[in-house]
Amino acid sequence: MQYNDFNKTTTFKTLFALVGQGKNFNYKALDAQRVQSAVARMSAGLAYSYAAKPVTSPILDALQALADEQELVAKYQSLLDGETMNVGEDRKVLHHLLRGQLGKDVVFEGRNLGTFYRQELERFAAFADAVHAGKITGATGKKFTTATQIGIGGSDLGPRALYLALENWADAEGKRKLNAKFISNVDPDDASAVLASLPLEETIFVLVSKSGTTQETLTNELFIKEKLKKAGLDPSRHIVAVTSETSPLAHNKSYLDSFYIDDFIGGRYSSMSGVGGVILSLAFGPDVFREILAGAHETDKLSLEKDIRKNAALLDALIGVWERNFLDFPYTAILPYSQALSRFPAHLQQLDMESNGKRVNRFGQPIAYSTGPVVFGEPGTNGQHSFYQLLHQGSDVVPLQFIGFVESQRKDDVAVDGSMSQAKLKANLAAQIVAFAKGKEDVNANKEFTGGRPSSLIFGKRLTPSVLGALLAHFENKVMFQGFVWNVNSFDQEGVQLGKALTKKALAHASGDQALEAYGKLLEI
Amino acid sequence: MQYNDFNKTTTFKTLFALVGQGKNFNYKALDAQRVQSAVARMSAGLAYSYAAKPVTSPILDALQALADEQELVAKYQSLLDGETMNVGEDRKVLHHLLRGQLGKDVVFEGRNLGTFYRQELERFAAFADAVHAGKITGATGKKFTTATQIGIGGSDLGPRALYLALENWADAEGKRKLNAKFISNVDPDDASAVLASLPLEETIFVLVSKSGTTQETLTNELFIKEKLKKAGLDPSRHIVAVTSETSPLAHNKSYLDSFYIDDFIGGRYSSMSGVGGVILSLAFGPDVFREILAGAHETDKLSLEKDIRKNAALLDALIGVWERNFLDFPYTAILPYSQALSRFPAHLQQLDMESNGKRVNRFGQPIAYSTGPVVFGEPGTNGQHSFYQLLHQGSDVVPLQFIGFVESQRKDDVAVDGSMSQAKLKANLAAQIVAFAKGKEDVNANKEFTGGRPSSLIFGKRLTPSVLGALLAHFENKVMFQGFVWNVNSFDQEGVQLGKALTKKALAHASGDQALEAYGKLLEI
Repeated sequence: MQYNDFNKTTTFKTLFALVGQGKNFNYKALDAQRVQSAVARMSAGLAYSYAAKPVTSPILDALQALADEQELVAKYQSLLDGETMNVGEDRKVLHHLLRGQLGKDVVFEGRNLGTFYRQELERFAAFADAVHAGKITGATGKKFTTATQIGIGGSDLGPRALYLALENWADAEGKRKLNAKFISNVDPDDASAVLASLPLEETIFVLVSKSGTTQETLTNELFIKEKLKKAGLDPSRHIVAVTSETSPLAHNKSYLDSFYIDDFIGGRYSSMSGVGGVILSLAFGPDVFREILAGAHETDKLSLEKDIRKNAALLDALIGVWERNFLDFPYTAILPYSQALSRFPAHLQQLDMESNGKRVNRFGQPIAYSTGPVVFGEPGTNGQHSFYQLLHQGSDVVPLQFIGFVESQRKDDVAVDGSMSQAKLKANLAAQIVAFAKGKEDVNANKEFTGGRPSSLIFGKRLTPSVLGALLAHFENKVMFQGFVWNVNSFDQEGVQLGKALTKKALAHASGDQALEAYGKLLEI
Repeated sequence: MQYNDFNKTTTFKTLFALVGQGKNFNYKALDAQRVQSAVARMSAGLAYSYAAKPVTSPILDALQALADEQELVAKYQSLLDGETMNVGEDRKVLHHLLRGQLGKDVVFEGRNLGTFYRQELERFAAFADAVHAGKITGATGKKFTTATQIGIGGSDLGPRALYLALENWADAEGKRKLNAKFISNVDPDDASAVLASLPLEETIFVLVSKSGTTQETLTNELFIKEKLKKAGLDPSRHIVAVTSETSPLAHNKSYLDSFYIDDFIGGRYSSMSGVGGVILSLAFGPDVFREILAGAHETDKLSLEKDIRKNAALLDALIGVWERNFLDFPYTAILPYSQALSRFPAHLQQLDMESNGKRVNRFGQPIAYSTGPVVFGEPGTNGQHSFYQLLHQGSDVVPLQFIGFVESQRKDDVAVDGSMSQAKLKANLAAQIVAFAKGKEDVNANKEFTGGRPSSLIFGKRLTPSVLGALLAHFENKVMFQGFVWNVNSFDQEGVQLGKALTKKALAHASGDQALEAYGKLLEI
């Protein structure tokens, strides 16, 4: 396997020669034939439409050559086979193994990790079943009605986004078992407010920290323990931990039980381990969680396809690289036309920006090209009444990633002016894609839309657990493939360390840094 | 008054000559003296720290000259005096008048608008008092316990952000009167899920649409009316409207009452009119809403100061222009270290991107420089465990706007490892500013932080209603001043029109656009 910087590849030059074709892409020629043909099938009935992306056949051919030259699928297979893909931290990268096996058996220190992950899944599934059956209860013997996750970053954003994405579906399908809440911030107002809203006696807390040393999470653990004690409730009857086996939270009698992950499951890739699995299984039942895994696994399989036109995650990744490095767009907006995905952009923001926001290659050498873009987004149609003004008529172009579904989750709808709300939602989505691409001429420049604003669309029938799993895996694999193109390590996050070190110094009033002390005074630390 | 394009000004050239000073700004020299001196006082006890911004004395002097040359404060005074500042739509811009008078009497069609706005404020304050006193009740005579806003864009994001910003403060201070919820999206899952969570009999709906023709809002109105009728509740006893006097919602017996704004209050600037005032007065009482107005009014006064070093909104605006047009940063992140401000970035995203996401000047002529940046953000410390990796070590630099407070809102806190959570929150904030600015050398490039990443900090004692008003007015005025520099109309939004027109065509299956029809088929509209 060759690991080469992107700008050292032959196809880098090929693509550079095609820049004019991308910049002069004829968005106004977008027609039915292009819309029907520029679609790549995904799993779980989803599809990726790239008709409104500035890619011609020669550009796609060059992107295929890039995929081949940078051995993107072979690198993915290496990852699946348990190679040390997180080189900086000397770790394997095994989140795909959480949802099924597509490579060799991965054995580490004598243990088959696929087996280990499956065992943990079975353990927390049984735990959730026991909670639902009332066999595991709180200190007073009352059944648990609410689960509350305590975690931050990857232990919060992904699980929270997935929970919100499915709660309406679960209610509509009669699958709801427990309510779920989340505490993440070290801001005491976060924990205090959530705690004030909880039926403490009926609440099970899911404490999530891989290392068992996350400052925010351990602080919030003590916050809830104090409240439980004050309410006369034994904390050890109300907390379950998700952590690594070497952490202080492991094998600890202070908790009802502990479920394990390991260093090969990165925080932002951990939603499909116990980090997301415990709370989702408690909320919706283990079978719903297994459907998420199954959808993701189907995507993982499809992502092994070498033909970029048949591998949506790979194609999406390459078009993103094309836009980032050759058309020079520094950002991407994620625009789900689905209220259920209200926090999905926040999770993708972490997934993408923490993975590929890097300025050194996998060998730790500085690189001279742009890597991961800024990612942001809000659900449509809300965004249309907000920041879309800039997207349509701003001085710069922002590539867009739309997501939409044929059916609503709750199927509770109303006809107004001859159409249902879901039809209006979809009509808005279709209209925006065309408006961004084609624009509209007007003698009044203030009412003119230049168009030429690229977008893609992921669409499917309805947002169900398997569709959600497929969707998330699509983005995980997209980010992974982009990391391979850029030759960065998408699986570490050294950029968080300096802040941690300086925080300790600021708290100790012993920073040795005058500026830090002065900011501390402004804030009365 | 002269309205000149930015690149035609003398100071544009002056600033261009200083680019090297900005690009080579010595962040590593940040010391106590700089931190203590680079502070501009704001109102309500807030202050704006720009120590870690790439501005030297000569740059600040040039920005002062720019402010003078573009007559920024004089233009603001014109706006206050009721001049037609929204030229494209031939409208005055009067949101400042909602919170106090700083200019001439503004009379339109024989009516003093300051008086009109005050009268409406008194009317909805009395209405809220009557609801709290149980004099106005739902159809069954039960007291209202929950208010639910139905609105989108400016009728949603601002009011929602302000409500979330104050609900913990209100609970801590015993000021809570009603709970509040929000329905915005045309996605039927939004309305259906919120409605399923409501005690309908005790719910008052606040229907907000200035024009009375917003598709999403009118659709959701019928959604709730249907639910109310099914529950045997007379809708006219459960809905109050906020609209303009010429709208179909005005003087309409289908509602408990109607409160009025006019075309001179833009959607994204309407939080301090009845658009935000009705729901906030219902939730927290009219006095709390008046405190928000008072804080904003103090900021508005301060924004008249011509010395940029004494006018934080003006200074913030100019530094933003400096970063956007001369240092070429296409985005800004808003990072509040306050969970209460969780949706404040989403509101500022609309405020900024919808106002200044323009490519023509106020006369409708295309301009050749960059205007409003992409704005995004999430609360810290959450963001630290998410996208901060890119902010620290990504290939591009993102300017940062931090916000922090000395005290928490709920004052319910816990000591862990010798410090309270609030102290940890502030220590993280101070540490991040210094880490972004100064970085850290390391022989391992992967662990190196280059620093040189600019940030500002707005800080205050505690997030109270007056502080919140001051904070929001700061950003409103900042965006206004930037619009004046760029010579754009920050008060229209023509970029939303094309989507609306195409949506109607898509719904009617009569677009005359093949591509739109084809997308409609993919989505089964």
